[in-house]
Amino acid sequence: MPPIVLLTDFGSLDTYVGVMKGVIAGIAPEAPILDLLHEIPLGDVRLGALLLDASLDAFPPGSVFCCVVDPGVGTSRRALAARVGPYTLVGPDNGLLSLAWARLTPARVFEIAERRYLRERVSRTFHGRDVFAPVAARIAGGLEIEALGPRVEDPVELRLPEPRPEAGGWRGEILRIDRFGNAITNLDAALARPGVRLRVAEHAFPLRETYGEASPGEPLALVGSSDRIELALNGENAVRRLGLRIGDAVLLEIDP
Amino acid sequence: MPPIVLLTDFGSLDTYVGVMKGVIAGIAPEAPILDLLHEIPLGDVRLGALLLDASLDAFPPGSVFCCVVDPGVGTSRRALAARVGPYTLVGPDNGLLSLAWARLTPARVFEIAERRYLRERVSRTFHGRDVFAPVAARIAGGLEIEALGPRVEDPVELRLPEPRPEAGGWRGEILRIDRFGNAITNLDAALARPGVRLRVAEHAFPLRETYGEASPGEPLALVGSSDRIELALNGENAVRRLGLRIGDAVLLEIDP
Amino acid sequence: MPPIVLLTDFGSLDTYVGVMKGVIAGIAPEAPILDLLHEIPLGDVRLGALLLDASLDAFPPGSVFCCVVDPGVGTSRRALAARVGPYTLVGPDNGLLSLAWARLTPARVFEIAERRYLRERVSRTFHGRDVFAPVAARIAGGLEIEALGPRVEDPVELRLPEPRPEAGGWRGEILRIDRFGNAITNLDAALARPGVRLRVAEHAFPLRETYGEASPGEPLALVGSSDRIELALNGENAVRRLGLRIGDAVLLEIDP
Repeated sequence: MPPIVLLTDFGSLDTYVGVMKGVIAGIAPEAPILDLLHEIPLGDVRLGALLLDASLDAFPPGSVFCCVVDPGVGTSRRALAARVGPYTLVGPDNGLLSLAWARLTPARVFEIAERRYLRERVSRTFHGRDVFAPVAARIAGGLEIEALGPRVEDPVELRLPEPRPEAGGWRGEILRIDRFGNAITNLDAALARPGVRLRVAEHAFPLRETYGEASPGEPLALVGSSDRIELALNGENAVRRLGLRIGDAVLLEIDP
Repeated sequence: MPPIVLLTDFGSLDTYVGVMKGVIAGIAPEAPILDLLHEIPLGDVRLGALLLDASLDAFPPGSVFCCVVDPGVGTSRRALAARVGPYTLVGPDNGLLSLAWARLTPARVFEIAERRYLRERVSRTFHGRDVFAPVAARIAGGLEIEALGPRVEDPVELRLPEPRPEAGGWRGEILRIDRFGNAITNLDAALARPGVRLRVAEHAFPLRETYGEASPGEPLALVGSSDRIELALNGENAVRRLGLRIGDAVLLEIDP
Repeated sequence: MPPIVLLTDFGSLDTYVGVMKGVIAGIAPEAPILDLLHEIPLGDVRLGALLLDASLDAFPPGSVFCCVVDPGVGTSRRALAARVGPYTLVGPDNGLLSLAWARLTPARVFEIAERRYLRERVSRTFHGRDVFAPVAARIAGGLEIEALGPRVEDPVELRLPEPRPEAGGWRGEILRIDRFGNAITNLDAALARPGVRLRVAEHAFPLRETYGEASPGEPLALVGSSDRIELALNGENAVRRLGLRIGDAVLLEIDP
């Protein structure tokens, strides 16, 4: 049975994730449950969408992603199931799944409307347990997403800021910060050519191939594990030291 | 094989939980291991008991709960295994399991006394590894709890504060705080009728059906996912903003 | 299929661990994945080595340990697979695996050199995903470590400080701190004889068999769950209260 992969903002301080696993184990006891991440900052749909998209390809075909970053739980926002490349994604209709399906088109998106696939009582506050976990488990067990409800033609779509060409290079921005204090930009690996230099305000980051090419504490840019250009300090926390922030403009200068 | 569900106060900063999983994998390699929660504050038996009781029903029949919030480890406190409804619970005799069995009676409780079901060497400090994990694994593998030792007729029982009727309503209290900063009370969902209002000191919380019915930042009460009345601020951390604390009196006013 | 056990410094705030699980699930879908610990402080190879060595014996024979505390990722440091007693360990050649193989000799250590067992594209920054997870998964699936590359005769070895005999006893030191605020020393359980007293600077810790033998708040030494002498305060955080630090000298006084 394919794995069910969990991505939430529930953290590890309460029983929400554990309870979702209980529901899954009751419906699809043979499906391995894999934790992708639960520490998305509360309600940060964009970061959830970025990390889902960046992580998807590491999982085997058939994996079912159960994604819950859902500040609109209990309102009329729809619940979705989407077939995206070889994967199935389940989650709220707030853009959380949309970066993945924008990249891995064509995607087919359906509304989760059939009550019989949900928990018997559906609360207004915990659709992770009552909607997304049971549906993900049934999909892992073979349910076709077409059976869940009507096709959705207008799901909520996130738009990431696109890098723009500028005199002498490109203007991008910082998309997210990782735990090592590196700043991941929206500049694609394809732009990383020899001689290129990155700049945020007064800080310059020469492009390197590895951390080892920079002296300790020296700024550098490199292509990170998710194929985007990242800004770092060798052996230090660049974000904290240089005061970098999500949304900061990043200039890529060619042959400066 | 049924899942083994772990509930501890060991946190994620040390290897205690991982080591328990190793012991389980050695005895019951086919049993899925599910983490319910490991971040119970150190030694907080009452919170562990509350969360175990609130989470149990999400798991499939046959699940074996291995519960370790055990400030008395190494003393003469007994180790218990209990059959509670369709579940088996394993843990120390300090009340940790008792809210679950008080609700899902009749329960049968046995002392874990037979040394041959434990780890070969039993330390004085880590019964999660040496007593509870091996016993939970053997139960998942088919061992009957009657084989573990004598029946226990006088296990330690926690008593939760009961709501009391008052002129115009009920007086309850805050039982616990969740990660979203909501305050969960001991007032049952059955008391949540239209027109009801909750009050903590000078703060009033009108009863709503969903967060969406309150304006951003507005206080509200609603029935939470565990069928108790919760106090919240729409989109904010009620506990931090209003200074709510476990044990605070909560007044439920009918038709105020 | 034997379990794959993960030990990293990736923490729980990013998707690194989740992504490794995805890679493993794609190669060895039947192998249970067990988290030993992910909260090793960033780059603390010695602590990783200590905890791996202290935890190993709890796992069943055949377990494959995938260990990533790897500050040298992207440099020329080798990647290793080692057969150590009944276990296989995979990780960087920086000493992380070496305390385990020093204890469970004879060990056989091989370099991971064959590209075909790695991820198709190997990044310079994330060998957990690209090297160690796929190799661990293939070993769980039956690959012999001899197939990975040449035998390594000179792997990096950590040396722990050894206790030294002194007039009237032994001089050891604090090796690590656990989450309860206990200080684990390099003094072996075999030195723990009746009448022994431990001392750090002006603080004396009489040897006890259990916490319960000391009054609340009283210092004590006892043999911890990993067979080393530990320093504690009954019911309190000894490290914080007494200002203990890793590396502090610990004197063991016999019949003082």
